[in-house]
Amino acid sequence: MLPAVFDLTRLRALYASGAFTPLDLAAALAERIAAADPAAFITPVSPAALREAAAALMARAPEPGSLPLWGVPFAVKDNIDVAGLPTTAACPAFAFTPETDAVAVARLKAAGALVVGKTNLDQFATGLNGTRSPYGAPRSVFDPAFISGGSSSGSAVAVAAGLAAFALGTDTAGSGRVPAAFNNLVGLKPSRGLISTTGLVPACRSLDCISVFALTVGDAVTVRRVAEGFDPADPYARRPAPRALPAAPRIGVLAGAEREFFGDAEAERLYDAACARAERLGWTLVPFDYAPFREAASLLYDGPWVAERLAAIEAFATANPDAIDPAVRRIVESARAYSAVDAFRGQYRLEALRRQTEATWAAVDALLLPTAPTTYTVEAMQADPITLNARLGLYTNFANLLDCAAIAVPAGFRPDGLPAGVTLVGRAFSDDALAPLADALHREAAPGLGRLREAALPEESRVAPPADGRIPLVVVGAHLTGLPLNRELTDLGGRLVRAARTAPDYRLYALPGTTPPKPGLVRAPGFAGPGLAVEVWSLDPAAFGRFAAAIPAPLGIGRITLEDGTAVSGFLCEAHAVAEAEEVTEFGGWRAYVASRR
Amino acid sequence: MLPAVFDLTRLRALYASGAFTPLDLAAALAERIAAADPAAFITPVSPAALREAAAALMARAPEPGSLPLWGVPFAVKDNIDVAGLPTTAACPAFAFTPETDAVAVARLKAAGALVVGKTNLDQFATGLNGTRSPYGAPRSVFDPAFISGGSSSGSAVAVAAGLAAFALGTDTAGSGRVPAAFNNLVGLKPSRGLISTTGLVPACRSLDCISVFALTVGDAVTVRRVAEGFDPADPYARRPAPRALPAAPRIGVLAGAEREFFGDAEAERLYDAACARAERLGWTLVPFDYAPFREAASLLYDGPWVAERLAAIEAFATANPDAIDPAVRRIVESARAYSAVDAFRGQYRLEALRRQTEATWAAVDALLLPTAPTTYTVEAMQADPITLNARLGLYTNFANLLDCAAIAVPAGFRPDGLPAGVTLVGRAFSDDALAPLADALHREAAPGLGRLREAALPEESRVAPPADGRIPLVVVGAHLTGLPLNRELTDLGGRLVRAARTAPDYRLYALPGTTPPKPGLVRAPGFAGPGLAVEVWSLDPAAFGRFAAAIPAPLGIGRITLEDGTAVSGFLCEAHAVAEAEEVTEFGGWRAYVASRR
Repeated sequence: MLPAVFDLTRLRALYASGAFTPLDLAAALAERIAAADPAAFITPVSPAALREAAAALMARAPEPGSLPLWGVPFAVKDNIDVAGLPTTAACPAFAFTPETDAVAVARLKAAGALVVGKTNLDQFATGLNGTRSPYGAPRSVFDPAFISGGSSSGSAVAVAAGLAAFALGTDTAGSGRVPAAFNNLVGLKPSRGLISTTGLVPACRSLDCISVFALTVGDAVTVRRVAEGFDPADPYARRPAPRALPAAPRIGVLAGAEREFFGDAEAERLYDAACARAERLGWTLVPFDYAPFREAASLLYDGPWVAERLAAIEAFATANPDAIDPAVRRIVESARAYSAVDAFRGQYRLEALRRQTEATWAAVDALLLPTAPTTYTVEAMQADPITLNARLGLYTNFANLLDCAAIAVPAGFRPDGLPAGVTLVGRAFSDDALAPLADALHREAAPGLGRLREAALPEESRVAPPADGRIPLVVVGAHLTGLPLNRELTDLGGRLVRAARTAPDYRLYALPGTTPPKPGLVRAPGFAGPGLAVEVWSLDPAAFGRFAAAIPAPLGIGRITLEDGTAVSGFLCEAHAVAEAEEVTEFGGWRAYVASRR
Repeated sequence: MLPAVFDLTRLRALYASGAFTPLDLAAALAERIAAADPAAFITPVSPAALREAAAALMARAPEPGSLPLWGVPFAVKDNIDVAGLPTTAACPAFAFTPETDAVAVARLKAAGALVVGKTNLDQFATGLNGTRSPYGAPRSVFDPAFISGGSSSGSAVAVAAGLAAFALGTDTAGSGRVPAAFNNLVGLKPSRGLISTTGLVPACRSLDCISVFALTVGDAVTVRRVAEGFDPADPYARRPAPRALPAAPRIGVLAGAEREFFGDAEAERLYDAACARAERLGWTLVPFDYAPFREAASLLYDGPWVAERLAAIEAFATANPDAIDPAVRRIVESARAYSAVDAFRGQYRLEALRRQTEATWAAVDALLLPTAPTTYTVEAMQADPITLNARLGLYTNFANLLDCAAIAVPAGFRPDGLPAGVTLVGRAFSDDALAPLADALHREAAPGLGRLREAALPEESRVAPPADGRIPLVVVGAHLTGLPLNRELTDLGGRLVRAARTAPDYRLYALPGTTPPKPGLVRAPGFAGPGLAVEVWSLDPAAFGRFAAAIPAPLGIGRITLEDGTAVSGFLCEAHAVAEAEEVTEFGGWRAYVASRR
């Protein structure tokens, strides 16, 4: 009954059919988890506890779909607290059992989602490959010889293998994106501060983001919207100021010497194919200089920011050096070489690089990058764990340092059956604007869902562009295109939406003594006139406000009913002003009347 | 001819009279500088060079007043580059002679201002007292036994003693404010990133601000506006998003245990007097919790930020330890004890404190603080240079760490003839909004100008409140205070401006079938009614736009003529809707009509 891999649309349809309940889900998942790669979970929820949670949900909210994530199972990276389950951060000696959920987990539970377990990770979220854990190395769902990616290794595998509908990961350097690429998933890394990090074991506390793995962009956005929200207890929480992007964006793409795939011609081919898809979608590709982004990326591990990793666990690391994975320890201990002077110098360098990248952001709306330049076998990674891991972050490490939002989407398969991914990157708080673009790119690739290469992306999860917040305005007279006051609209950033006609019960008058000549539009219920030719323009709210406030009497802004029955803001006229005015309704519009007088 | 102390208004009037030219100025200043405290300047411009600069200005722009700072002499703190003059940072062994002006200096010169010299400072801008310089300790212009304040010691003395009309200082911990307090001046510390720091020897590069000393707030703002401007070469430059403040602000004042004047009862009395003046201006005093601000302040010298001071001069300090002032060296060398982990932990603490201060910023529009809690003699300061200096920064050190703008203004005199100051502090980019408040507070104190206690502040330099860009809106019915739809206004940030009455030629109708009940206001030229009680609210343009766009037919926004003859945007009603409605004009307003129906 439960599909082998299940997105929110499929699961909701199943629940809506009435033939499947969260209790059935609990039973099905318990079986699947028992049979799955044991490295995926550090602490799976027991079958009994899962059943209990399902029963509690049905008692609390009996109606399927009555909560936004009603009966949706999710996995939680094991550096994020779930009350009553140990938080290990993949380090048994570090483990503790929290009494309260992380804020993001609490929000998801409140929305009806069910925790299926705590997933494996590169210890202390330090790594991008998935092999740095005493709980075993999860593998790509497409080939057990290959790494799953990390650090959110188990979370990605859980979703791709049909053990959860979505999963929480974390993303400081790319941990929420690289494993998505290696398991044919969407990896959504929100802007810093959108999702509370209260209840997260820090990696780099000033940069950490909780991220979302899902099968579609639409699912990831749904989850993010439930999980996010300003948390006053999180000093790094921020109130977003959403950034809009055009529907046909300019997209920065890698060029010249900055195209680095470490010899992986198939990865390069898949990146080029994704760029070609972007072009087919009508986007404009703009080669840009990746160098300052690359240099910023290098600061994360080869610079003072490693000190944040030490700051997070210093007392533990000092007391228990042998409890730490050797590669992780090497990185964390490298922090001891950095002084406070180094830390500030790193920030100066970052600020200078940020300024350099502004030239790119002036030329493009978003970047399209390979999520990872290549992938490796577990064996190769374990043989050269620092160098190969560093390569994986070439195109991800910069994002949090440079305050970006990112959504990784699948980008098809190599001939050997391994998937690759690409990531759309925008500036802070472009999250909602990036989503429809990432969704379109994902659909154009048609790569299946997780381990199911043949599955179709459901139409229901398509992401609509965010409402642009502009306000439509019906103009009737001197503001029409080509007439003397039209410039007031264009100076305020107004855009012509369409020509239109009013409902028939409007009368138009030529107002005496106005310069330039202006009409007055007055509604006369019951009057069966021709309807009047008007134009619908749009303005942003502030421009609309300034425009409306500047209109002189006897005109004003009310609601005009158009011939299609919609009521749109537009120019009306006080009745007293038309008492002595010439009625010009018969011309069918102000432009025709003006033309008749020439 | 040249007044003993001269603000921009006096100097402009002198030039406009035609009897005084920049050449006269050059001659007068050369004489004054030669006779003044030799500790004020490290490198005064030579009389010949000053005359040359004056002549060059008159050749370039012959007309007095033809440039914004035409012929205005200014002093420059000697950690800011002026082409061709040595930059010493008060450390002879560190000195170099730059070939180009600092960006701020170049802007001021281009606007017609004339550099009179490079002023003394606490070495490397490390100190708030003015005694840490091998070039001598400038003294308060009111008593040579007392410190001038620092680190911008010479800049303050130059303006207060009539050696310049204004001066550039710098302000990391309070160096642009404390010396203003001790010399009866205005000290304007702009928001970080407003004035370019290109060409400044860094103290704490992430926090440093170039500041302005002037005799009036109006002068300081004039200078700031010339000096400021986004500089792409300065990684810490920012594009401002101006923050508005109400005309009658809520002002945070010290309370309880946070009132600390180190036993200086006169300083406390002068602070209380300033608070009383603020109340007389109609401001609302709100005691607030200074503790998180104080803790943030302590991070600057007793925390990892001292590492920025070492980062700025590390190679020099390591090679030339004996070239550095002992107190400065002790502070700078203390940075070597801090690790990168300490640096990040300091930032975590600062973020947490910043979050704590948000509660205060929700309750107040600006803070009113003593600029310094007390002052000391040079002798006392030299006997205990670290502790006493730290006290001076109690109320200033936090401002840049917590991203504030600040304007210090004179606050009167102690019985011993020493001046004290108070500082208005607002959040980032409240600079323009703070200025009229600081100016009003300064005028209310009437403390003279610099060393001239009896001089009057010229009316011409009065700072008008910035246009707040809000749009007034006349509400007539259900949006009145206390009526059901009022919340739509307050939810959009609307503010009640005043109660008002329409012109007599309006009729009011109770619209049938509306929920909640709504009136329609219709103008009837010639009708001599009672006029209708309305309220004027204000909204920002975007809120006004959203509000106007949401109004349902038959209502709309047009212009309403009030009884004083002004035409303000407000609610009108389409005439057809009142054809069958009950006229309620006789009640004199919607509220009275509604009350009559209860």
